[in-house]
Amino acid sequence: MPTVDLRSDTVTRPTAAMREAMARAEVGDDVMGEDPTVNGLQEAVAALLGKEAALFMPSGTMANQVAVRTHTEPGDEIILEGTAHIYIYEGGGFAALSGVSVCCAPGERGLLTPAAVAAAIRAPGSLSHFPVTRLLCLENSANRGGGTVYTPARTRALAVVAREHGLALHLDGARLLNAAVAQGVDPAELAEPFDSVSVCLSKGLGCPVGSLLAGSRAFIERAHRFRKQFGGGMRQAGILAAAGLHALERHVDRLADDHRRARRLAEALARLPGLEVDLEAVQTNMVYIGLPAGADNAAWLAELKARGVLAGAVKPGLLRAVTHLDVDDAGIDAAIDAFTALAR
Amino acid sequence: MPTVDLRSDTVTRPTAAMREAMARAEVGDDVMGEDPTVNGLQEAVAALLGKEAALFMPSGTMANQVAVRTHTEPGDEIILEGTAHIYIYEGGGFAALSGVSVCCAPGERGLLTPAAVAAAIRAPGSLSHFPVTRLLCLENSANRGGGTVYTPARTRALAVVAREHGLALHLDGARLLNAAVAQGVDPAELAEPFDSVSVCLSKGLGCPVGSLLAGSRAFIERAHRFRKQFGGGMRQAGILAAAGLHALERHVDRLADDHRRARRLAEALARLPGLEVDLEAVQTNMVYIGLPAGADNAAWLAELKARGVLAGAVKPGLLRAVTHLDVDDAGIDAAIDAFTALAR
Amino acid sequence: MPTVDLRSDTVTRPTAAMREAMARAEVGDDVMGEDPTVNGLQEAVAALLGKEAALFMPSGTMANQVAVRTHTEPGDEIILEGTAHIYIYEGGGFAALSGVSVCCAPGERGLLTPAAVAAAIRAPGSLSHFPVTRLLCLENSANRGGGTVYTPARTRALAVVAREHGLALHLDGARLLNAAVAQGVDPAELAEPFDSVSVCLSKGLGCPVGSLLAGSRAFIERAHRFRKQFGGGMRQAGILAAAGLHALERHVDRLADDHRRARRLAEALARLPGLEVDLEAVQTNMVYIGLPAGADNAAWLAELKARGVLAGAVKPGLLRAVTHLDVDDAGIDAAIDAFTALAR
Amino acid sequence: MPTVDLRSDTVTRPTAAMREAMARAEVGDDVMGEDPTVNGLQEAVAALLGKEAALFMPSGTMANQVAVRTHTEPGDEIILEGTAHIYIYEGGGFAALSGVSVCCAPGERGLLTPAAVAAAIRAPGSLSHFPVTRLLCLENSANRGGGTVYTPARTRALAVVAREHGLALHLDGARLLNAAVAQGVDPAELAEPFDSVSVCLSKGLGCPVGSLLAGSRAFIERAHRFRKQFGGGMRQAGILAAAGLHALERHVDRLADDHRRARRLAEALARLPGLEVDLEAVQTNMVYIGLPAGADNAAWLAELKARGVLAGAVKPGLLRAVTHLDVDDAGIDAAIDAFTALAR
Repeated sequence: MPTVDLRSDTVTRPTAAMREAMARAEVGDDVMGEDPTVNGLQEAVAALLGKEAALFMPSGTMANQVAVRTHTEPGDEIILEGTAHIYIYEGGGFAALSGVSVCCAPGERGLLTPAAVAAAIRAPGSLSHFPVTRLLCLENSANRGGGTVYTPARTRALAVVAREHGLALHLDGARLLNAAVAQGVDPAELAEPFDSVSVCLSKGLGCPVGSLLAGSRAFIERAHRFRKQFGGGMRQAGILAAAGLHALERHVDRLADDHRRARRLAEALARLPGLEVDLEAVQTNMVYIGLPAGADNAAWLAELKARGVLAGAVKPGLLRAVTHLDVDDAGIDAAIDAFTALAR
Repeated sequence: MPTVDLRSDTVTRPTAAMREAMARAEVGDDVMGEDPTVNGLQEAVAALLGKEAALFMPSGTMANQVAVRTHTEPGDEIILEGTAHIYIYEGGGFAALSGVSVCCAPGERGLLTPAAVAAAIRAPGSLSHFPVTRLLCLENSANRGGGTVYTPARTRALAVVAREHGLALHLDGARLLNAAVAQGVDPAELAEPFDSVSVCLSKGLGCPVGSLLAGSRAFIERAHRFRKQFGGGMRQAGILAAAGLHALERHVDRLADDHRRARRLAEALARLPGLEVDLEAVQTNMVYIGLPAGADNAAWLAELKARGVLAGAVKPGLLRAVTHLDVDDAGIDAAIDAFTALAR
Repeated sequence: MPTVDLRSDTVTRPTAAMREAMARAEVGDDVMGEDPTVNGLQEAVAALLGKEAALFMPSGTMANQVAVRTHTEPGDEIILEGTAHIYIYEGGGFAALSGVSVCCAPGERGLLTPAAVAAAIRAPGSLSHFPVTRLLCLENSANRGGGTVYTPARTRALAVVAREHGLALHLDGARLLNAAVAQGVDPAELAEPFDSVSVCLSKGLGCPVGSLLAGSRAFIERAHRFRKQFGGGMRQAGILAAAGLHALERHVDRLADDHRRARRLAEALARLPGLEVDLEAVQTNMVYIGLPAGADNAAWLAELKARGVLAGAVKPGLLRAVTHLDVDDAGIDAAIDAFTALAR
Repeated sequence: MPTVDLRSDTVTRPTAAMREAMARAEVGDDVMGEDPTVNGLQEAVAALLGKEAALFMPSGTMANQVAVRTHTEPGDEIILEGTAHIYIYEGGGFAALSGVSVCCAPGERGLLTPAAVAAAIRAPGSLSHFPVTRLLCLENSANRGGGTVYTPARTRALAVVAREHGLALHLDGARLLNAAVAQGVDPAELAEPFDSVSVCLSKGLGCPVGSLLAGSRAFIERAHRFRKQFGGGMRQAGILAAAGLHALERHVDRLADDHRRARRLAEALARLPGLEVDLEAVQTNMVYIGLPAGADNAAWLAELKARGVLAGAVKPGLLRAVTHLDVDDAGIDAAIDAFTALAR
């Protein structure tokens, strides 16, 4: 029985064509700035996001954490939605590496509102008591919100509040291309209000390794220093960058398929007894599945696996299924069948 | 017209007797551990709190931040109520000095529940994604909760949850003696479940400067290193410690007067039109006063001042009045009169 | 038998007049900026050092470490002489609190040369490999150099090198007044080339507690934030500041007596068989005493103590004697007698 | 004219066979621990170094900095030779990411002696003044020492001193295989005394990207957390790991060729007028070349480049040439010819 792996869009394996692109990649020493494929990818991503420059990174975590570091100094505070990846899933790096405090503004399906952001900004001055609010971080699409998306208008409205209070803006765009494709908008439009934007190659784009951080030339120059310090300076990284260039050409438009499949899965599961799926949150390639009260995650995951379906557990009673390059329609059928069998 | 200063219990000036005690203090070089008055105070506070040892600190902020540092390493996470002093009013020190992340559990009147704490603890393991939950910090009394108090039973219930998950426990007891006097319990009983406890001399006790951090001998030995590193090693600090010893003898029982006066003020203000006072939260020496919708803090504070009453602003529409050693019944009368005049 | 304590100039106890000044001090809440005596002392010290502003600190360590923090960001590097107090005796705070690397330039008797500083500055750029040289710290007088002093001319020559490379300059002036009195120059002249200067009240000046950090108004405003974060915000600190104001009036000129006594002690010990004293280094109130080969520090200190003389051990085979407010001519006689007895 | 690139052994480009191995690599999501090729490489390197476990890293800098972080806490101090890569070339990460101070012990050709290490260890206790000496880091081969090597005996002697004082030991083995091959000893013997060892794939081994950190299972488990936090968790990293496995099989023994060529180059240059080469330091694949007094690095590098030879500049008057997989005998001839022409 073939297995469909819905645990995450990070599990994709490079296609034969992508492997071929990597094998042929022209490379150089990127620590010296001499890898032509890395340079090409950096230029391509900067152009895609409408920024002056971009920097290749070994991971999305590093792209985000270098951005936080570049924008702040210890004792500053960043504003995030309480389920943000930067806050929960990056090992506490914002505090450990950048020494910054975090203020979690309340969100709706993982998305912040201008009012919530305004309320989270600490009054300046205040006898030096408060941390200094310095940076607003958004995540588009918002993973833990359900793969929900910020529209260009909502993004701009949030930016207005941030700018009024002198905050910098960073976009965790690990899945920004999902957000763009889902809305049919230019990624550069979604990136426009931000000082810095990270994007991941190793999620929906199907590359093995790599993320990029984009921003102004001055910002990227400063970020380069921290990439080195964090240990992200790699040598002939063109091998990896070649996969990124390949994916930008071939794997962006097809994200629509992932979204369509996630939608189909979500609607099917929403009809099953005992399962809870917030269909309004299913905007890109993710489906969060609430289990019946008292259900045991491990038991469900084991039963699904026995039926050839791998899913992920988010917290007690909540599973997640993510569509991606290695999930086809048959995989979705298999997942629907497995959940249907279990839900009875 | 005499002025009553209700901005904070930190504004007290030393009494003549306390000044005399300071002037007479026997001193030595405390960096070398040779100040007899500091040593005496440390022993007295350790005994009061039922701990093996205590350490004199220049501020409550340092006492708390050294505690956080001693319990954790960068990348750990601490659990706090979202209005905790350690989180909001200490310059982001937990992140800047200790590199720790914070998880704000929801509280009721500034007080945490065992369920909220349990929900805030990150699952261990998790592929190294999460920060490591290491420490639970409570604040008793809880300033921003209204000066509310944890009972011994509630404290113990919270400790059970923390211990089950291997967390350490710190008590921000800046106003622990208020909490003890208000409930008529031994401070050591309130301190018992904690690995470390801070107490302030410069608030309700009326001393000019100083706080202490108490814990096991091993904990205090480690804390000593970080006190030095943070710049809290002082020389003939016995001058300040003498005030502390004096206050422990003379100024503890009288906290009941502060509580009685706060109660009288709160009940009077609660009857005034347009003002909102949560009487259930008035458990020690604080009164939080909600202003009529649209009221301007600065204007109210100016009008109060014109009537000889100083109060503090917490956030738009919310004032705070705190009773202390330098506030007598006449001061409370003046405050009631002033608010009454303004509320009309 | 009376004891003379030559371990450090930090062991002085406040005089009766100083105690009286403290007992009478007018005070307020300095966290709110309302302590008139603290404000007065800050102004006096700023004026003394020719700077716009100054800030009261609980310790010299905090004054130095807040200065380092204010000038730098993590990943920067500071240049120090290898025996500098900031480097060795402050608990590694520069790395722990400010995240900065250190480059120890070689000194002569604790004093740096322009050539050594120039050689220690890292080339900028360099593919982000190097830490960024940001700050030069001098110490005047230089404790571990023997209490040696920088002249105004040497200070200026060092500043020229630092400025050429865009470095900021901090002066650890824990004993700056010793350096000024010893040379008969205005402390402001010695402070002139620096962006920030720390001075201690609790060493030669004989106060129980306190140091100040001086600089431009903007620098001090930024430093205020870090003082709070490090836990150095104190309330009615005017009690301590009063001692400082008293000492500035009464205890500065008398440092010449300490220097004269140190000189007498040094010359006497230099004549003793087996002891080594570098007389050229005896420029202020310190005498470093090399013991005969194989001598045991602990045994020597015990024998000295048995004769009523307390001295300090610096490292194997090296003792230190420091003169101060509580050491008179008889104390020096006692020390000479004790060393003479032991040297035989 | 073909160019020989002697700037660094990091400039090597993957061979056709290595590219083929990468293209064929079986991969999985290494963040979930499921990449078989990464797992295979980690086991192979652990076995090679005689350690329980190893962890794949995007760079040697991250391998070293994660090791420092895993061994220490902020305020600790590490002992290094003053030209160590960890100290100079890693962006000040030890201070910025781990908050640790550094004590540079004096070395000979980049190599430490037991006596120098013993002298660098701070006395424990000391009233909390000193940073806490926690870790000794050696570098084998020592890049800035000239590519010099520690023998097994010298390594063990240093370990004895470190263990006596309770220090942990880390080996920066970026070029450990060069050191092993040059001495004809087992890398595991050189690694034996250390708690942790880093090795680089992207230097002499000719891989595009990657390093490993090896140690006990418990150490690697803890290091895994910090790798994630620093942003070093990669997904289908088996693409890169495949190159490593390939190189371990094919590119280790051939390091002897690099050493032979470096030796030939060094001896030829040593004979040229005006050039200074310390032949005793030429123990592996590096040649440091002192230029005639007053020579300009940039001019020399440009002239060499005009003759098809790329070399690196270390500091004013000092060049470096490094042999590696992409340098053959003809390249050495070209380099000798170019230097010969210039030296005249």
